Amino acid sequence: MRTRLLLLGAGRSASSLIQYLLRHAPTENWFLTVADANPAHLVPVLAAHSEYARAVPFSMENEALLEELVTQADVVISMLPALLHPVVARACLRHGRHLATASYVSPEIRELHEEAQAAGITLLMECGLDPGLDHMSAMRAIAHIRARGGRITSFKSYCGGLLAPAAEGDNPWKYKFTWNPRNVVLAGQSTAKFLENGHPRFIPYQQLFARTETLVLPEYGEFEGYANRDSLSYRAPYGLDDIPTILRGTLRRPGYCAAWHALVRLGLTDDSVNLDNPETMTWAELVEAYLPTSFIPHLDLSARVAAYLGLNPTGEEMGRLHWLGLFSDRPVGHARATPAQLLERLLAEKWQLQPHDHDLIVMQHLFEYELNGTTHRLTSSLTVEGDDATHTGMAKTVGLPLGMAVRRLVRGEVAERGVLIPVQADLYEPILDELAAEYGIRFSEEEH
Amino acid sequence: MRTRLLLLGAGRSASSLIQYLLRHAPTENWFLTVADANPAHLVPVLAAHSEYARAVPFSMENEALLEELVTQADVVISMLPALLHPVVARACLRHGRHLATASYVSPEIRELHEEAQAAGITLLMECGLDPGLDHMSAMRAIAHIRARGGRITSFKSYCGGLLAPAAEGDNPWKYKFTWNPRNVVLAGQSTAKFLENGHPRFIPYQQLFARTETLVLPEYGEFEGYANRDSLSYRAPYGLDDIPTILRGTLRRPGYCAAWHALVRLGLTDDSVNLDNPETMTWAELVEAYLPTSFIPHLDLSARVAAYLGLNPTGEEMGRLHWLGLFSDRPVGHARATPAQLLERLLAEKWQLQPHDHDLIVMQHLFEYELNGTTHRLTSSLTVEGDDATHTGMAKTVGLPLGMAVRRLVRGEVAERGVLIPVQADLYEPILDELAAEYGIRFSEEEH
Repeated sequence: MRTRLLLLGAGRSASSLIQYLLRHAPTENWFLTVADANPAHLVPVLAAHSEYARAVPFSMENEALLEELVTQADVVISMLPALLHPVVARACLRHGRHLATASYVSPEIRELHEEAQAAGITLLMECGLDPGLDHMSAMRAIAHIRARGGRITSFKSYCGGLLAPAAEGDNPWKYKFTWNPRNVVLAGQSTAKFLENGHPRFIPYQQLFARTETLVLPEYGEFEGYANRDSLSYRAPYGLDDIPTILRGTLRRPGYCAAWHALVRLGLTDDSVNLDNPETMTWAELVEAYLPTSFIPHLDLSARVAAYLGLNPTGEEMGRLHWLGLFSDRPVGHARATPAQLLERLLAEKWQLQPHDHDLIVMQHLFEYELNGTTHRLTSSLTVEGDDATHTGMAKTVGLPLGMAVRRLVRGEVAERGVLIPVQADLYEPILDELAAEYGIRFSEEEH
Repeated sequence: MRTRLLLLGAGRSASSLIQYLLRHAPTENWFLTVADANPAHLVPVLAAHSEYARAVPFSMENEALLEELVTQADVVISMLPALLHPVVARACLRHGRHLATASYVSPEIRELHEEAQAAGITLLMECGLDPGLDHMSAMRAIAHIRARGGRITSFKSYCGGLLAPAAEGDNPWKYKFTWNPRNVVLAGQSTAKFLENGHPRFIPYQQLFARTETLVLPEYGEFEGYANRDSLSYRAPYGLDDIPTILRGTLRRPGYCAAWHALVRLGLTDDSVNLDNPETMTWAELVEAYLPTSFIPHLDLSARVAAYLGLNPTGEEMGRLHWLGLFSDRPVGHARATPAQLLERLLAEKWQLQPHDHDLIVMQHLFEYELNGTTHRLTSSLTVEGDDATHTGMAKTVGLPLGMAVRRLVRGEVAERGVLIPVQADLYEPILDELAAEYGIRFSEEEH
């Protein structure tokens, strides 16, 4: 009897997941149904695998179809947007199907825990990159330190989806979108909270991109990290309730954050107000509108912006703003929009990943622990470049851990029921081993 | 046949409205029902008027009671929180009753316009102080300028609910709460937009309290104004669609805004994050948590805050922060709260209006207009002090215009149906005249 897998959503970042599932379908005796809004692009991918895979058109608006597809599956995998997962999870509960995703456990999903346990169903969440591989690799390192009798006093963990050096080209931001552009534009719009030496630390949005740390990754050099919104919530699942220092952050190439801080200070990342602008408004007019009236009127716009923000008019930050065309007569192109919407529209063009561009996934965990009366430091680093524009580093590091988790789930190797995340050794150990052995995706550790 | 008035909600700012309605009930042949969650405090007020007034206990959760009360009334007045007005307005529509409020026309209320017109019902909104008296006084001035052939080129309008000088005492903020504290703490948390010389101007929240204007009011001296969220929306109702300069703002006493700007920059007005704090956390610990790690560790907390914000450590801004107890060992007193919730809790005590305190309402319109080839300036100013802690300036300037608007509505002197605001001369002229003649509430005009 074949096991029937249903994959809901097959966007850009599902390529490596599909490849993984197809690779194992013959030997694991799977039949894979890929349900997507635009299944046409899947036809060539699945053509050589028609014995054990098919694509079907699908939309979440068609509730009857969702019911039908879930009923016909043994295990459901969802790469749909995270906000759709409660609906998918409830369909899985109704029909007694396991679910696996790469998305965060939302409060709505958490509420289903007892019901899923009672139904004997596993809702396996946070099995992608971040969240996912971050949990797995951090927990392995934590377990190793503990096994040797170490007491962890500091855990800082950073992740970023960036560009392979060759793809950075002359883009001074050294950044292009490999993930949801809107999330990048709105990143950090809340107070970040973390712990340092037992003391809470808070960074409000308007300071976030000015308070970065520098990190060094093997072979790739320097990066800068800014704090994520909530580092405190990682204490409980990692068993680090009493840790004095914990910080989660996002990585960018040096210089990005200072220039982004300038955009924040200008006001261009605000998403709460409709500017009532015409679509013919130019970027220069938009930026001018943020300066105080009659602000040094004899200088040109970019010199006035530099003076207003206290930046060197010929420095790197201003260079990055120039490169975006912020002082140009180019129309903003979208009437009655928020500043964040206009900025996203501009960046979507300037930061568009080109077909020949390789992306780069970077993750680093920095531990401090006490062992035999001395303080030790352990750094665990991962860098993964994309193979091409389809099998990006993002697609690989999101899709492969998820595919491997699904394989364990289908095999009956995941005994726990209810809402799970991959923080248990019997789940993350074989996945980390398979990533290293089969795909060369491995963390390099350095004790110092 | 008596006209039956229903007043929903009789909180602090309803005192002068109730007094006005009681004053006119015998001669206008009204019977007033005051429906409030806690009607006990109304018993002594209404005792001498039992022939034409009563109080009833009321809660919006009791939908049947709302239906019953609205059915029994000819005209409904609501001083309930604005977000409840759509429910009240729909009940009025169902039973064919007019409604009057001092609240803004929300999108939900605006949607009822055609339905109200078809039903022959008037939903008379924005009849308090701001919105209300601001519309009436501005429209009178605009009509006067136009009647003389003037073309208005600039309209700036400011309003504030402040303290009579004697009540300012040694409070360096010269401010106490006479209105919803939460709204004061969250004021301006969006980009402010206005027009200046035909150009749009935007001020993001993190700059708002640093970009103020100074105004002078007769007898009361200097005030400072910061821009309100949306000045552009006033163009259409005022018939000023092509005006080059329009700005609406809020008034504070000098120094308030610079010190509030320091609170914003620290991050203490953010309402989007739960700090996971214990209630025993002290204010000093909270403020410390916002500073960068090891920030000039040899200095004391307030000196480090001053250095971090670039303020004079013994200057007025820091003096205001000290006066709030921001560097003290006093517990924040509320676990797992947002910074804004903690700040509101602190300010509710520090800025509490005392029984002997008189408040002060301040409003100023500044017009520029062209007439016979020259530019003229007209300033129209209002200052209203409270009589006592019950009949505050706020209660008078909110309640009296509303009561007067209701009197015209009941008399059949408001012919228009649908959703209305008081921008028509036949409504605002008699109200402004009555306010001046009966209550001494009059704008002083100065041409210069």
